[in-house]
Amino acid sequence: MFFTDKSAMKRAIELALRGTGKVSPNPRVGCVILENGQIIAEGWHEEFGGPHAEVMAIENAARDSFEGCTLVVNLEPCSHFGKTPPCADLIIEKRFSKVIVGMIDPNPDVSGSGVQKLRDAGIEVEVGILEEECKWINRFFSKHITTGLPYVIAKVGQSLDGCIATNRGESKWITSEESRRKVHILRNEVDAVAIGKKTAQLDNPLLTVRDIDGINPKRIVFDTDLTLPLNLNLFQEDYRENTYICCSPNALQTRKAETLKLAGIKLVPVEVNDSGKLNIPSALYAFTELGITSILVEGGAELLSNFAASQMIDELHLFIAPIIIGNGIHSFEKFKINYLKESLEFKLRALTNCGQDIHALFTVN
Amino acid sequence: MFFTDKSAMKRAIELALRGTGKVSPNPRVGCVILENGQIIAEGWHEEFGGPHAEVMAIENAARDSFEGCTLVVNLEPCSHFGKTPPCADLIIEKRFSKVIVGMIDPNPDVSGSGVQKLRDAGIEVEVGILEEECKWINRFFSKHITTGLPYVIAKVGQSLDGCIATNRGESKWITSEESRRKVHILRNEVDAVAIGKKTAQLDNPLLTVRDIDGINPKRIVFDTDLTLPLNLNLFQEDYRENTYICCSPNALQTRKAETLKLAGIKLVPVEVNDSGKLNIPSALYAFTELGITSILVEGGAELLSNFAASQMIDELHLFIAPIIIGNGIHSFEKFKINYLKESLEFKLRALTNCGQDIHALFTVN
Repeated sequence: MFFTDKSAMKRAIELALRGTGKVSPNPRVGCVILENGQIIAEGWHEEFGGPHAEVMAIENAARDSFEGCTLVVNLEPCSHFGKTPPCADLIIEKRFSKVIVGMIDPNPDVSGSGVQKLRDAGIEVEVGILEEECKWINRFFSKHITTGLPYVIAKVGQSLDGCIATNRGESKWITSEESRRKVHILRNEVDAVAIGKKTAQLDNPLLTVRDIDGINPKRIVFDTDLTLPLNLNLFQEDYRENTYICCSPNALQTRKAETLKLAGIKLVPVEVNDSGKLNIPSALYAFTELGITSILVEGGAELLSNFAASQMIDELHLFIAPIIIGNGIHSFEKFKINYLKESLEFKLRALTNCGQDIHALFTVN
Repeated sequence: MFFTDKSAMKRAIELALRGTGKVSPNPRVGCVILENGQIIAEGWHEEFGGPHAEVMAIENAARDSFEGCTLVVNLEPCSHFGKTPPCADLIIEKRFSKVIVGMIDPNPDVSGSGVQKLRDAGIEVEVGILEEECKWINRFFSKHITTGLPYVIAKVGQSLDGCIATNRGESKWITSEESRRKVHILRNEVDAVAIGKKTAQLDNPLLTVRDIDGINPKRIVFDTDLTLPLNLNLFQEDYRENTYICCSPNALQTRKAETLKLAGIKLVPVEVNDSGKLNIPSALYAFTELGITSILVEGGAELLSNFAASQMIDELHLFIAPIIIGNGIHSFEKFKINYLKESLEFKLRALTNCGQDIHALFTVN
């Protein structure tokens, strides 16, 4: 098979995705080395702190010089000393003739300087091949590195009239098995999953990755006053190590707080708004401190509405079941606006069937 | 071009659709005559009471005998004297060798007897070519002829969280221009459009077919106590002739009723439920009396919920805008259930983008 710039980049992206769930907060990076249109070596960033994709590919090639060769990588090679020496220097040292870059590193400490270094050394560099795909696979990293906040994905499983549960709180199961399976795939891609107090009580979920091979994300419950009982699934011995509760600073002083901490559950104090609700940006900054660069908000209506009101949703996965529930609990019913112009706008990015359900993917930008 | 049974049936369906908006309560029927795989004549049912598609095609061919020819028609040829003599007799008389039928006539007075007559006369008959498409284009007719009720299409234009308006009733415009254009296409396909009292007040719509060439459907407003003011667009001189108000039998006795009737607006008395709402099946039977075989219910939440509760929705067109409204008016919020198993189930039939909106088509069966 002869590789063009594009098909080689496609391969680099495939390799990058092998780092899913293992490299955060680092970006997912894959790299291939081309000689006369043939791939002579591949590499990818395998785990946080491990060698970069370029280093892996170069090592795998086991050569001293790469004259006439092209290095293809989805993210700009680094030019600074981080956990590893700069990849740009290595590429120059190994005498590559050409470098193809998917996207410039959004990290303000790198942004363009890796490419500049390569060009200054006389290497031909092309930037922006399959740029949109490259940006998509590292959207968590980009958000985190440019804003200091985790990337927020909201997931909603609802009836066609927008209900996530009946008026009595029954929600098992509105959506199809296929939809729920997709949620498990999403869980595997993020650093943490968050739910509100009522969802913890009513659904008593485990929030683990099931049905697919994957790594369990951290579990976060929003419980302002720490009133949730300790017998919930989330708090059981096998799971509590990775369970966090966001609560008010006041609640931290209570006896319940002591009990929870003794049980090994981590408490995250979060500012409280005038409305008595936990402040979402403050919670997100706290998550960043915990090394979380992406979070999946799974409901319920209270938490989803709170995130919507804070305009803190970057991406929304809507699973719509072909049923009418009517007077149930609606997904964002606590998000209050007075005029249509205040509604929260998204862009439809993808639309597919998911069994009998609809799966719609929206982003803010 | 050589025509197979299927491609000839496809052409017959295309021809049938030319009758849209003109043949109700008759079915839409198209017919082609094949000789050696070539179409030698075409015909379609052009208007209510006019000649049938088979007669048109045979006339257009201007021949005495059709030995060796195949007649292709989307609906079983009739065998009884209606407004015209039986088509089956004509086909036999014209000595066709073969007849291809899309679907058996659902009319209990015909159902299979047309095909039987042809077979008895020694003509080879094949039934069920593109049957699903044939059934789809005459679903209004089938419902009407088998149940005596019009086919009910509900149309909902909502935000991704199920709101058809803000809590103050603002709904212009939640959905995109493309979605609204599709609604005008739908209006052109049905005999009548229905709305509730609040929608008439808040949106003050004309309910006409715009942006496309088409025929205005009858306009129906549900207004139990006849409290709507006469200055609404629906009641203006140019439109009132085709405007109907469904009201309680009691309201018929009021002075307002007299005023409305004098203005040329037709009042349709409908039974009232214990809940004080107009009884939907009773309204639908009244529509049948008016020659209505299909109706598009455009909202609002009260009327949609009333139709849902009566389980009288055959088809649902959901237009979903990529926005969150939150605490607005939800599409079916007055439809009350206690358990998930009581939810109203649909089947997803088609899913497409409509500008930035999603257009999902559901049916009950």
